[in-house]
Amino acid sequence: MQIKIITIGKVKEKYIAEQISEYKKRISVFAKLEIVELKAESFGDSNKEQAKRKEGDRLLEVLDKENDARLIALDEFGSEYTSKEFSQLICGENRRIVFVIGGTLGFDPRVLERVDEKLALSKMTLLHEMARLLLFEQIYRGIAIEKGKKYHY
Amino acid sequence: MQIKIITIGKVKEKYIAEQISEYKKRISVFAKLEIVELKAESFGDSNKEQAKRKEGDRLLEVLDKENDARLIALDEFGSEYTSKEFSQLICGENRRIVFVIGGTLGFDPRVLERVDEKLALSKMTLLHEMARLLLFEQIYRGIAIEKGKKYHY
Repeated sequence: MQIKIITIGKVKEKYIAEQISEYKKRISVFAKLEIVELKAESFGDSNKEQAKRKEGDRLLEVLDKENDARLIALDEFGSEYTSKEFSQLICGENRRIVFVIGGTLGFDPRVLERVDEKLALSKMTLLHEMARLLLFEQIYRGIAIEKGKKYHY
Repeated sequence: MQIKIITIGKVKEKYIAEQISEYKKRISVFAKLEIVELKAESFGDSNKEQAKRKEGDRLLEVLDKENDARLIALDEFGSEYTSKEFSQLICGENRRIVFVIGGTLGFDPRVLERVDEKLALSKMTLLHEMARLLLFEQIYRGIAIEKGKKYHY
């Protein structure tokens, strides 16, 4: 299993960063996991669209190097999966899976057009860092389901 | 707006407890918010069902005192709402809304039968404490949407 997670910006909340780091360790036992953290663009109220576009350029540059990978963007309007279905998605895929998480500004539309599919962790709008943690948690949960591992819910 | 949240057990993760406490403060500016934390039953592998039943008894005792309230249990098989729809749900309701969150063991089926509806924060199975935080966050987000308040996503 090969998983790559491309994000914009660093996680600022210490607890969330620690939790993500813990899940990284657990996932890495079972999968080749690579994290790419791209620079977030600083912005004010007046130049949000421009900043989003610049972040989009950075994401597209990385995505363009991905050949034969399944590209999945986290987006609240995307498809939803149960944890079991998500487990089947990640464990049943032979290609590398690349998850893309936008920054606090959201995605440049070009990125959403470029990916193969969009995944919604919830229909609700989630805090950006929370969504990031949730993705790691669900990847680990998915592996635990596949391996029949006991995992405390 | 009157909101009551009934839960089983205390939140153990310090960060999650702090975040919930922050959202409580923010929500309380706009709504009468009451939290009822019922005792969690300790259990081993052999007596999970019995423990779940005891927790169910405690929940039902509290729910039986609720007259003319809208009873909503958090359940991954429940209905999903977008944050905007959820905002309309909580801000458009004249009755008191009572949210019930099960313990780590999940719900006694009698509780799910007793409530008016079931709400899923996600189709995915969430960590118990995470779901609890998410509910507070979405209630605050719902109020912020209704009030047109700026809230950092």
